[in-house]
Amino acid sequence: MSLAQGRPYLAIPGPSVMPDAVLRAMHRASPNIYEGELTEMVAGMVPDLKRVARTDGHVAIYITNGHGTWEAALANTVAPGETVLVCATGRFGHGWAEMAEAMGIEVEILDFGRTAPIDPERLRARLAEDAGGAIKAVLAVHVDTSSSIRSDIAECRRALNEAGHGALLMADCIASLACDRFEMDLWGADIAITASQKGLMVPPGLGFVFFNDRADAVRRRMPRVSRYWDWSPRADPQMFYQYFGGTAPTHHLYGLRAALDMIHAEGMEAIWARHATLARAIWTAVDAWGGEGPLRLNVANPAERSHAVTALRIGAPHGARLRAWTDEQAGVTLGIGLGMSEEGDPTGTGFFRFGHMGHVNAHMVLGMLGTVEAGLAALGVPHGAGGVSAAARIVAEGTGAVLSTPAHPQEVARWG
Amino acid sequence: MSLAQGRPYLAIPGPSVMPDAVLRAMHRASPNIYEGELTEMVAGMVPDLKRVARTDGHVAIYITNGHGTWEAALANTVAPGETVLVCATGRFGHGWAEMAEAMGIEVEILDFGRTAPIDPERLRARLAEDAGGAIKAVLAVHVDTSSSIRSDIAECRRALNEAGHGALLMADCIASLACDRFEMDLWGADIAITASQKGLMVPPGLGFVFFNDRADAVRRRMPRVSRYWDWSPRADPQMFYQYFGGTAPTHHLYGLRAALDMIHAEGMEAIWARHATLARAIWTAVDAWGGEGPLRLNVANPAERSHAVTALRIGAPHGARLRAWTDEQAGVTLGIGLGMSEEGDPTGTGFFRFGHMGHVNAHMVLGMLGTVEAGLAALGVPHGAGGVSAAARIVAEGTGAVLSTPAHPQEVARWG
Amino acid sequence: MSLAQGRPYLAIPGPSVMPDAVLRAMHRASPNIYEGELTEMVAGMVPDLKRVARTDGHVAIYITNGHGTWEAALANTVAPGETVLVCATGRFGHGWAEMAEAMGIEVEILDFGRTAPIDPERLRARLAEDAGGAIKAVLAVHVDTSSSIRSDIAECRRALNEAGHGALLMADCIASLACDRFEMDLWGADIAITASQKGLMVPPGLGFVFFNDRADAVRRRMPRVSRYWDWSPRADPQMFYQYFGGTAPTHHLYGLRAALDMIHAEGMEAIWARHATLARAIWTAVDAWGGEGPLRLNVANPAERSHAVTALRIGAPHGARLRAWTDEQAGVTLGIGLGMSEEGDPTGTGFFRFGHMGHVNAHMVLGMLGTVEAGLAALGVPHGAGGVSAAARIVAEGTGAVLSTPAHPQEVARWG
Amino acid sequence: MSLAQGRPYLAIPGPSVMPDAVLRAMHRASPNIYEGELTEMVAGMVPDLKRVARTDGHVAIYITNGHGTWEAALANTVAPGETVLVCATGRFGHGWAEMAEAMGIEVEILDFGRTAPIDPERLRARLAEDAGGAIKAVLAVHVDTSSSIRSDIAECRRALNEAGHGALLMADCIASLACDRFEMDLWGADIAITASQKGLMVPPGLGFVFFNDRADAVRRRMPRVSRYWDWSPRADPQMFYQYFGGTAPTHHLYGLRAALDMIHAEGMEAIWARHATLARAIWTAVDAWGGEGPLRLNVANPAERSHAVTALRIGAPHGARLRAWTDEQAGVTLGIGLGMSEEGDPTGTGFFRFGHMGHVNAHMVLGMLGTVEAGLAALGVPHGAGGVSAAARIVAEGTGAVLSTPAHPQEVARWG
Repeated sequence: MSLAQGRPYLAIPGPSVMPDAVLRAMHRASPNIYEGELTEMVAGMVPDLKRVARTDGHVAIYITNGHGTWEAALANTVAPGETVLVCATGRFGHGWAEMAEAMGIEVEILDFGRTAPIDPERLRARLAEDAGGAIKAVLAVHVDTSSSIRSDIAECRRALNEAGHGALLMADCIASLACDRFEMDLWGADIAITASQKGLMVPPGLGFVFFNDRADAVRRRMPRVSRYWDWSPRADPQMFYQYFGGTAPTHHLYGLRAALDMIHAEGMEAIWARHATLARAIWTAVDAWGGEGPLRLNVANPAERSHAVTALRIGAPHGARLRAWTDEQAGVTLGIGLGMSEEGDPTGTGFFRFGHMGHVNAHMVLGMLGTVEAGLAALGVPHGAGGVSAAARIVAEGTGAVLSTPAHPQEVARWG
Repeated sequence: MSLAQGRPYLAIPGPSVMPDAVLRAMHRASPNIYEGELTEMVAGMVPDLKRVARTDGHVAIYITNGHGTWEAALANTVAPGETVLVCATGRFGHGWAEMAEAMGIEVEILDFGRTAPIDPERLRARLAEDAGGAIKAVLAVHVDTSSSIRSDIAECRRALNEAGHGALLMADCIASLACDRFEMDLWGADIAITASQKGLMVPPGLGFVFFNDRADAVRRRMPRVSRYWDWSPRADPQMFYQYFGGTAPTHHLYGLRAALDMIHAEGMEAIWARHATLARAIWTAVDAWGGEGPLRLNVANPAERSHAVTALRIGAPHGARLRAWTDEQAGVTLGIGLGMSEEGDPTGTGFFRFGHMGHVNAHMVLGMLGTVEAGLAALGVPHGAGGVSAAARIVAEGTGAVLSTPAHPQEVARWG
Repeated sequence: MSLAQGRPYLAIPGPSVMPDAVLRAMHRASPNIYEGELTEMVAGMVPDLKRVARTDGHVAIYITNGHGTWEAALANTVAPGETVLVCATGRFGHGWAEMAEAMGIEVEILDFGRTAPIDPERLRARLAEDAGGAIKAVLAVHVDTSSSIRSDIAECRRALNEAGHGALLMADCIASLACDRFEMDLWGADIAITASQKGLMVPPGLGFVFFNDRADAVRRRMPRVSRYWDWSPRADPQMFYQYFGGTAPTHHLYGLRAALDMIHAEGMEAIWARHATLARAIWTAVDAWGGEGPLRLNVANPAERSHAVTALRIGAPHGARLRAWTDEQAGVTLGIGLGMSEEGDPTGTGFFRFGHMGHVNAHMVLGMLGTVEAGLAALGVPHGAGGVSAAARIVAEGTGAVLSTPAHPQEVARWG
Repeated sequence: MSLAQGRPYLAIPGPSVMPDAVLRAMHRASPNIYEGELTEMVAGMVPDLKRVARTDGHVAIYITNGHGTWEAALANTVAPGETVLVCATGRFGHGWAEMAEAMGIEVEILDFGRTAPIDPERLRARLAEDAGGAIKAVLAVHVDTSSSIRSDIAECRRALNEAGHGALLMADCIASLACDRFEMDLWGADIAITASQKGLMVPPGLGFVFFNDRADAVRRRMPRVSRYWDWSPRADPQMFYQYFGGTAPTHHLYGLRAALDMIHAEGMEAIWARHATLARAIWTAVDAWGGEGPLRLNVANPAERSHAVTALRIGAPHGARLRAWTDEQAGVTLGIGLGMSEEGDPTGTGFFRFGHMGHVNAHMVLGMLGTVEAGLAALGVPHGAGGVSAAARIVAEGTGAVLSTPAHPQEVARWG
């Protein structure tokens, strides 16, 4: 007998759960793309997007996915033959590096493994060696979706500054924006990229590149930028179609408008606090289960963990079995382990991930944890008792929850 | 800080959670009501409806709600001045009685309180006294949504038979159909009524009256039945509009078609087993919490509990406070206590209910229980630890779950 | 080859075309029915409904269809054995009479045929004969959907007044409300009924009975009114569920809210003017076609024609053939002839109807007329040339269109 | 008074009218992207896509718009510094050329003006001069959306063959695929590009590049192709994410599946025939109006006209005024004139366009024409009478309509 028939819950690290309001907004007739409602709506969305990334800079909207924004950011700032330094903390850092290589860019990787964040000192040291300034950009993944490691972007900026290095600092915020605190201007990122289908709660299909004047100055010196990736007309269009380098992604834009309304109604600080508390609830459950069994969080230090995705190690083949059980028996789809193979488990069946990003509340998370606890029992995987009950206590304490990355008071005043 | 922003979960005893497939089917242009797809679809739905109620009899579909089906059933079979015997096990039994009275019907109530089911022996004894056959119908609520008591309809039939009484047996299955096992023909109900918004997973707006030939013979002897309530043309229409006594409820019908597809794809036995196991998970959690605090299930005997709704007593004003907390802090809306006041709590703030009917799976129920456990902690209501974890264990054992009302093997063969 | 693949257009006299905004509003999760958004929304809709019917009286909302409102209006005001006088101008007047008879009401019919409106003088004369006041209510269909005749309700009131008769005046506005001008209070209707699926642009499933204090006084003297039909708690509820005599029609209510927003944003006068002009465009096309062929409008006098539905005579079997052609070849579904049989054509295949009610604009109507013109040509039905082009000219003149029933200046000021 | 309130009709050349089935399919929860339904669905769509383009070759699906497919096709086959020959018949040919230039490609334009198709003889002559084979690709727009000129792609192939030139032939089918007959393999196009929002009836956001083995061989010789544009993994993925170079466009894919189902249920030949007949109806109306006034089709020769978009000249400022009138008064939004300025009218207000692509039937087109006829009258623009009535006659004759580009019998047998 299956207990899955009911509203399925997709707990993967993107696409996230789409709010009804977003899907409803997208269920509409094609609009006039020459004048009127749509054109006015898009102009109004630009400042609301920038508020999410905490920047007074610019934003270019692309019809693409997250990988496309990797290419977009590079296409505007790094020419073939130039060099970038990639700080890798998981599969996606390496993926960005591969994308750069395919563009003819020289790539150097600082690999921090898959269980630790970027070490700013190591970054500083490497930059200090580059006296000639061969490195044009430092590519840092804020949260690597595969490992769920969160790195400190402000510390990366400090490393650049202390090394006296002029490279651009690019942050991949695909898995973190509108989930984990991210302060583009305050932290000193020159470029931040993200996509629609995670914290922004819109189906996959839109990518965003935020950039500041410093990055734009580099763009202006580029010998050539292809039309599709060129951020200049997109960020400063003379005509409506230039926002999107051609036909607008009409239906996605209505969804994005609805999502931005939800985001700013709740408030960035409230969103970050919600994700922080729910993440702590998850960690607490896993710690309880892991007390008497093989289950472990991939990242040991809470300060280095994403608030939006959690990678776990349970040992082959329990990860794959657990995913199958929760999906077929209880209506919960968990994320696969990605880029996390180990000896004796080349395909990573001993790993899995929780997605808890965007449109996610206490009910959804506690239901997921209860389901996992049931699955561990049903499959006979040894585990400590009471994980979900322990998580419920964290939720109960939630009102007083302390964010692991505290807010800067002046920023609160600035961005509200 | 609130942890509610995310997909809200409505855990009230109706309307239940609507499946996406149902809502999607209803989001459509108005159809041709004279010929073609719609007319063929409705003809095809009638047998599928009867399979849900386990009857080879007839069904009349009404544009109405559950209360309307109370009136419909009576309008076809009991004339003003005639007498019915109402077996009350909660607020809704009394409500049906009031509806009968307003129709000019003489009403006698056998009141079994709000914590016990119909006592067949008491029913038999009363019927035995009615040698003249003044009682035209016995009105029995299968599951009273207010008290969550489930009565045994087959035993009611036995009481009628043993008393040698010819009254019709009417069963109110509004809160039970497609959740708790109900076997109209096997159990000997002459009439069964239900509505769309609970186990049938369609928005409120449709009511159903199932009836057998014996009830129909009574109908034919009625001096007068109003056109709107008359089940004859609805159950045996010569023209399409007669199904609905006028314009068809077009959009609801598409939703109902989608819901019936889901129901029969899963199978009635599987649906009943799912609800039984999820109910046991809920009871287990409540028993754990109640071990060290005031929380109690309203119905002591598990065999007398609904598998679709659970009434609880926690003491004023904790019920109302808990409902407010789960709604505002965690995204879960619980049902109010209904008709359950007690001394010092005239409005019933010490009671509340869980709805777990229709489109409900392990994730939804465990999430609800985890949220309640968090709420109890947050509000400082004393409670035993580990309720949701205990529930998770019941879910884990689910595959082997035994239904509290065992299936009759021949019925399984008959209805598949 | 078919030219039908595209957005189908349903040009039948109800259900009408549902606006996207209405369907979108209905595509949503079940709401909390105890408190919050829904309960506040319903309270706010009541005055907006009354503004549509132009009354300061009361409104009861039913989960039912139009036929159900016939029964509802009678159930509150006419007891079995009492007499009503039905003014019939088509099939639906007779239908209302049949519904009354099935309730045990004595029915007398004044039959005005199927091509002429109510003759107020004949009504006055009959009422004058009823010195004893046996007639408790006059049932008048404002627009009979089958014949598309529109009667003058203000003249009916004058007939009652001149006869010094105290019967209630009930108006069936199912096919006219929010299409043709209707002024309940100014015109002196005591009761007006309608349903959701025509001018109100909401799927079938809701019925409305508007009534004034005079009708309510009759209600209070009734020996018995069944709970489902009783308008008292619905119009003056002490608790939310009483609005609907049980579970609220949750999803329809969200649709109705969206529709009322559209209606009042456009304005009642603008809506009436739009329907009047589009109706004139249709008549003009039919007159052109009829100049050299068999096609005729059912109602000769423009002042007696509905602005929302148009019945036509083309001769058997051309009506049925034309309907099949437009449906299969061009994507337009026309209404069947209803209750319009004639010698040699018992099933009425020589008749058909256009629906042009509610969410209907120049494009939709001109497209329908163009399609019919194409169909006449394709089927070889003789017809005068240029019908749709003639209709386009009426549309062009639309801005200056004069309503056939002029607005009362004071009413414009009153209702805005 | 406005007659616009009703279902608006967007008659612009893309995005086209989205079928309800497509929007409904997109209104759904995010799916599992690792395994199950979605992954199987995508594999099944690939052959269905190829059937639309009539090719046994390959297809790469991109999250992008039409302009993005211009860049994608070039990125796979033409390196910076290499040369392409662009055959321009309107604004979009020049746009493709600009996109190539921004990629560092040398561009030579054969400009055929904005009222005539590609002249194959001129193309042949130019290619014959290129004895050294400097030209790597010929870029031909099948239908230029701005001018509505349709060129003969098979004749372009013949020109290449006769010149003995080995350049790739790329066809831009954005405005024509699934509207005008296009036979990729039979006609000898090496690459064909399109986007989702026109004949494919899916919201903007997907682009498609079809290519044959010959084009793929060129791809394999390219020194470098960026990851996002590289068609190799997209057309021959080893893992699901490679179809889309990252996260799949989940919701669009469900919409595309629904659209492909509609397309193949109707059949490619039937779709082409429908568009051909509806286009003839439009031309007939315009010819009638133009008989006594300034309105003219942009393309004189019917064989050179698109069946999906029609550009018109009416003289400044009538185009802009007419567009405003139909939008505000009748619910029809027409396309702006694009790239069609002339002396005294630098912004092209004397031009406008009809879109009639994809989900379009007789009702929609006749309604649009009726509206335009009304608008011409309302605005006092001189015009011949009876345009829409003349169009209705074409529709009536539709069944026997002859396609202007006849089907090749063997192809009908091949593709069904």
